[in-house]
Amino acid sequence: MTAARPGGRTARNTRAIFDALFAELVERGHGGLTMEAIATRAGVHKSTLYRRWPTTDLLLAAALAEHPRNDWTPDRSGELIKDLVGVGRAVLDGLDDPVIGPISRACMAAAFGSEPAAAALTAFLDDQNRRAAIVVTDAIERGDLPPDTDPTALIERLVAPLYYRRLILHRPVPPEALTAAARAALRPAEGVSRSG
Amino acid sequence: MTAARPGGRTARNTRAIFDALFAELVERGHGGLTMEAIATRAGVHKSTLYRRWPTTDLLLAAALAEHPRNDWTPDRSGELIKDLVGVGRAVLDGLDDPVIGPISRACMAAAFGSEPAAAALTAFLDDQNRRAAIVVTDAIERGDLPPDTDPTALIERLVAPLYYRRLILHRPVPPEALTAAARAALRPAEGVSRSG
Repeated sequence: MTAARPGGRTARNTRAIFDALFAELVERGHGGLTMEAIATRAGVHKSTLYRRWPTTDLLLAAALAEHPRNDWTPDRSGELIKDLVGVGRAVLDGLDDPVIGPISRACMAAAFGSEPAAAALTAFLDDQNRRAAIVVTDAIERGDLPPDTDPTALIERLVAPLYYRRLILHRPVPPEALTAAARAALRPAEGVSRSG
Repeated sequence: MTAARPGGRTARNTRAIFDALFAELVERGHGGLTMEAIATRAGVHKSTLYRRWPTTDLLLAAALAEHPRNDWTPDRSGELIKDLVGVGRAVLDGLDDPVIGPISRACMAAAFGSEPAAAALTAFLDDQNRRAAIVVTDAIERGDLPPDTDPTALIERLVAPLYYRRLILHRPVPPEALTAAARAALRPAEGVSRSG
């Protein structure tokens, strides 16, 4: 056995396999995923896939590390409510995006049936929420929020009703619901400020 | 062709097929569903299933009308915050239940890939939220909430963070998070009261 060289054949194959997986997801969705189709599209042998990832859900969990949103950062206008609405809009736009949407939905579907997929999804969403939380940290530094505000908890309060409405209830989220979510997410933090 | 008699062979077959589907979901999850296994377990021919429901997701959508939680009603103690925590606890207990949990999760997974399954899930959850909303209506009638409170919207605010944490982030929901969700769900209604 030879060690994998960074940027070498193994890295190129992995990139091709993840790209093929994402393309298959966009075309066929999570229910239509097969190792056969991914291998053919990536130009590798099926056994190469099975050796590294015994199921499509394990492959999906590994590919989340290459999710197109991994380097996302929020817009920072210097106005908290505007920034929070921007974070919420980015979440919703991602779910409705013709490429990112099917990938995200497939990861959520896989997570219901696979613990490694669920763990990968949790890590991915935690990272996204931490990235978004910089708009809350900005507001704390400006003195617009109390210093003991938990930035990630505030972001979770913001996005929870958006995910619930869009991915569990399968309803659109109108702009006024997004603004309401941003205002509601702020309230416990304001409560801390008033009682402190 | 003979018409289906209510309570006759067609109704008995349908009941057996839905029971077999639920049992397969509990044993194998959404990813392991096959028409073959459901038909064998139900004691009907596979073609009987395919004729009525061309895919397992369409069968799942039809079976949601027989979900074990369809006749659920919330506990009504006469104390709003206690009743809301009870509704939230019922949602979480359902998701963790060894029978109801796999059925619910399978419906959510199916809804990501199938519009009829998504529509059936929306109808099911809307009905559950309307059933829960009676504890809000009780509070309005007691004068504990303003008369213009939207009972179903309040229940959606209560359950959104629970579903997000449990089904999207795949984290447990500790009792203090449940109480916090109940208190947060009340705030916009209290805001209406104060400004009214």
